[in-house]
Formats: sequence, structure tokens, C-alpha cells
Amino acid sequence: VAESRSKGSERRRIALTERVAIDTLARVFGKARGRGIAMGIGDDAAILRDAGSQIVWSIDSSIEGTHFERDWLSLGEAAGRALAAAVSDLSAMGARPVAALCALGVPHGTTKRDFTAIAAGQRKIAERAHCPIIGGDIARAERLSFTTTVLGRAEEPLTRRGARPGDEIWLLGTLGEAAMGLRALQVRASATTRAAQSAIRACVKAWRQPPLLLREGQRLVGRASAALDVSDGLALDASRIAAASQVGLVIDQHQLEQAASAHLLRACSVLGVDPVEAMLHGGEDYALLATGKPARRPRGVRVIGRVTRGEGAWLLEGITRRRLERGFDHLASGP
Amino acid sequence: VAESRSKGSERRRIALTERVAIDTLARVFGKARGRGIAMGIGDDAAILRDAGSQIVWSIDSSIEGTHFERDWLSLGEAAGRALAAAVSDLSAMGARPVAALCALGVPHGTTKRDFTAIAAGQRKIAERAHCPIIGGDIARAERLSFTTTVLGRAEEPLTRRGARPGDEIWLLGTLGEAAMGLRALQVRASATTRAAQSAIRACVKAWRQPPLLLREGQRLVGRASAALDVSDGLALDASRIAAASQVGLVIDQHQLEQAASAHLLRACSVLGVDPVEAMLHGGEDYALLATGKPARRPRGVRVIGRVTRGEGAWLLEGITRRRLERGFDHLASGP
Repeated sequence: VAESRSKGSERRRIALTERVAIDTLARVFGKARGRGIAMGIGDDAAILRDAGSQIVWSIDSSIEGTHFERDWLSLGEAAGRALAAAVSDLSAMGARPVAALCALGVPHGTTKRDFTAIAAGQRKIAERAHCPIIGGDIARAERLSFTTTVLGRAEEPLTRRGARPGDEIWLLGTLGEAAMGLRALQVRASATTRAAQSAIRACVKAWRQPPLLLREGQRLVGRASAALDVSDGLALDASRIAAASQVGLVIDQHQLEQAASAHLLRACSVLGVDPVEAMLHGGEDYALLATGKPARRPRGVRVIGRVTRGEGAWLLEGITRRRLERGFDHLASGP
Repeated sequence: VAESRSKGSERRRIALTERVAIDTLARVFGKARGRGIAMGIGDDAAILRDAGSQIVWSIDSSIEGTHFERDWLSLGEAAGRALAAAVSDLSAMGARPVAALCALGVPHGTTKRDFTAIAAGQRKIAERAHCPIIGGDIARAERLSFTTTVLGRAEEPLTRRGARPGDEIWLLGTLGEAAMGLRALQVRASATTRAAQSAIRACVKAWRQPPLLLREGQRLVGRASAALDVSDGLALDASRIAAASQVGLVIDQHQLEQAASAHLLRACSVLGVDPVEAMLHGGEDYALLATGKPARRPRGVRVIGRVTRGEGAWLLEGITRRRLERGFDHLASGP
């Protein structure tokens, strides 16, 4: 009895990482069954079967103190950024947005003027994404929060599951800039040269105003074998495609370096960060990572590696390859 | 210039009530246009057009410190209650649930055991509602929160807009018990007699485990002219049907008193609350309020008033009627 008690109290102390949390959900909820459900937990969005097309459906939270601080961006930018992050899941599935609902957590002291700025920031992105906000929920909360659910349609949604050995790894959008922008805001970085100042500004903008990449995602339909949006760092997100597709993803360091923007290189130099590290582990990019046959590669994508047999995400440095560490865990770190 | 400055700073100070917030959203977002959108902001859920049936779609938040405190209910109950509140919007639209996504805000210190209890609590309600959770989002937050989006289908969704003069006002479910249960938890009420203890227990259960009323809502389809779920108190929710339908709703105090349960009467006596006040302004009931022609009244509903020409929600006391005050404002009050 003493032993089982001690085991019991040990069980209670298990720290909750995101991996543990997702495994728990997968175990408790099991495979979702039911008419109309094509795919449940485990991708950028769930998929519902529908006459003609499929419905792609996702939810995403942006919480003050976890995802942003108020002095890093304006209220309108915080609101727009939250919607853009949600829409990015539709881009990654190759879906066309239909509409969004947003649940707002509103702290005491928020004025009508603040609220108008929030709504205007959402509207700007909603118009750009052709994704009208058609409902929501408002509740008092200690910290400002935006929880957005977006719904889109796709004939053939892109999932994480179809990567095959021999496929190329494609990148659409930029990596590392958003993470360096965030770092610059966190440490209140100051640059001395004009070029460095402009690089920092560009990186801060990349963080504050993530790209939507809806057309880019739709262009992948029928061409890519798998896709997702890079929100938690290339290393972690590549390992997600690897796990879902049961293959290995080998990122080529030379090709990755070629994809580094001039702004990224300058900002990394100011901040003392290795650009490859920023691209691999930075996160918050909302770039699209996809895989597909070389012959089907669309225009405008960068090839940054190759899909192989095996498992996991790897970095090829010259002739040696090293296993990429896992990236950001939403629960292991925090405010 | 001085005057306009002073006006400017006055504008900045306008306190944000829910009414102000919703008006701001309606103004900024305007009428949602777009193929596939049948109805946007202003009802229990948004409605999307679809082949054959319509898609009913809603989002609802439940936040520690705003909607509940941890010592008022178990983690599993908090999770299940949040899902039930979201599903209640589908009941009110006469829709059949398809699936749910849940965004979880998880505080530091949450263990795997806690998380398993949360998932199990959601699963219990998901099974009862035939509404599987097929995805979501997990983020670190200062307070525990559940933001749930539910999607359902209905051939003819019930809205708040169709009430006509001459219709009866129908109640499905109970009023007041949940609010008295919450009050009992807040003040740690203790009852002396067995009957009173059992009444308090029943009211606490009514708050912790809101009803789903899915069949009741579906039974209203083709019969009710308007419907919603009573989450913010009968007075406020009746005024919402009145406003959306451009009619008056007159609640008959005598009929309302007849609808009071024995548990409610006993609990009100312990807590020193007028039962009619609890029914009118308590909230958190998740009962269904509907209107419809007397000849179309389904079995098992209680008639509690009449729809008239005019506007607003009223209480008929004998031969006099008084305007019902607005109920709970989600932003005016708070933690």
C-alpha cells in the first residue's frame, strides 16, 4: 500500500509538457468517429466531409503574457496577428477561408477606444484574407486574449501525412525574421547603423504582421504531398511532418543558409544569434513547409532538403547529419 | 483645439460594457457578406449555407476567475461545463452537433493527472452530446480557460428573429436553480434541514452540470418562431428576442412562479433571495426560451408569457406591467 501511494503521488507530480498533453487528449478522445468527420486531432486543422468540398476547421489562441506583451505591438496589431495566425492553418491546408469567429478575453480598464482599435485590427486582416468575422464571444479576463476559430473549404486538403522518400522539402515564406523581431522587442535591441536599424525594423514587422500565404497554400494543392505552417520552428515542424508521414526529413544546411534574408543576417549579427539557429528554432514565422516530387515543384518555392526513409528531422552539415532537437513546447516554457 | 482635446480624452475613458463592445463590433465588421454565409453576428451562433442543410457554428469561453473558481467544482466538471455551455448554443438553434474544437489555457503547476481529469470531463459531455472533440489548441495561460467552438447542422436553424405578436413564450428546462447553486458556492451556504440541504445540492448540481437540451431544441424546429438559450438571465435573454424580432415579450409573473421548482423555492429561502428575481436575473441556466403559436406548442414546454406588439421585455404583475431591467453584462461586472 505504501508503495502504491508513493507511486500515486509520483504520478500527480508529472509536469505537463505539450507532448504529454497531446498524448493524453489522443488517448482520452481516441479516434473521432461520426458521419461527416474526415480527420480529427493531429494536423493544422480538423477536416469535415461535405458535399462537393471538404470543410477545414481550426482554433488558435493568442494570450497576453504568453504570446505577446502589450508594449511589443499596438492593440490593433495584436488582434490582427491573432487572426493571421489562425488563418495560417487554412493556408497550410490549401483551403479558401469562409469565415471566422473570435472569442475575446477583455481585461478591466479596456476602453471603448481600445476595443475599437482591436476590432479595426481584426477587420484589416479579415479583409486581406477574405475571411469575415461573423460571430464570437466576449468575456472579462485578467489578460487580453484572442481565441479565433476559422473555417475554410478545400477540395483536397493538404495534410502532414503524405510525404514520401525522394520528395523535396519546400519552403514558402521567410524563416527566422519573426523570431529575431520578437527577440529585439524583448531585449529592446538598439542598432547603430542604418542598415542594421532597417533590418531590425523589418524583423519586428515580420513578427507583428505575419504573412497569410493563402495563395501560396492553394498553389500547393495537387502538387505537395504534405504541408504545414511553421509556427513552432522549422526543426519541430519538420519533425511533425516526419512523424505523421513516417519518413525522415533531412534539411540541407547549405540550402537553408541560402534561404536566409539579408535582414535576417543583419539582425542576427546585432543580436548575436546564429542565423541557422534562428531559422531552425525561432518559430512564429508562419511560413509554409511542404514536401513534394521535384517534377511537381511550383514556382517561387525554395528547396531546403530531401525526404528520406527512416524517421525524424535531421540537419545535413556537409557530409554529416545531426538529429534536430525538438523545438518550442507550448507548455514546457511559458510566461 | 482645447475642447477637442478634452473630448478626445473623454472618449478614451468610456467604460466598455458588453453593449458598447457588441455595437463596436457590429459597426466595424458591418454585415458579413460572402458566399456561404447565411447569418453573422447577433444570434446564438453563426449560420453557413451548405448543400442540403445549414451549418450552425458558435464559440464560447469559460475562464477561471470570470466564469468559475477552482474550489467550486472539480477540473472535470469545469471542463464538461464549458463544453455543455457551448453545445447549448446548438440546442437553441435546433441543430444536431457535428463536432467541437477546444482551445485550452493551461496554468503552470497543472499536472498530467489534472490534464487527464480535464480531458475525461470533456469526453463525458462530448459522448452525451454526440459531439466529439476533434481538435484544438493548447497554450500556457495564467488562469485555466476553455474556449470551445462547436459546429452543428440544421435544416431550418431557429433564430431570435421570428417572434410574432400573439405567440406564446415557452420555457424548456429550469430557471434560477443554477444561479442559486452558484450563490451557495460563493457564500459557502450551509442548510440546517435535510430538505434544504438536498435543495442546495440540487442547485449546485444544476450549476456544475448544465443540461444539454439538444432533443428539446430539435423538437422546437418547425414549431417555434424564435428561440435562444437562457445563459444571462431570463430578463436579458427575453429582451434579446424582443430586439431581434422587433416585438414585446411580456412574462407573466404568475406563470413564472408556477415554473419554480421545489428545490429553487427551498434554496431561495436558505439564501434569502426572491425566487422570481432568481429566475429573472440569475442566469447560467442554459434553459431554452422560445416563442410560437399556441396551436404549435410542443409537449413538455411551460407557457410563461405572451408576445405583443411594441418592444422590450416586461413583467406582468396582476394587471400592471413593469419594464424588466437588463440582466448580466459580461463586461460591466467581472472578477
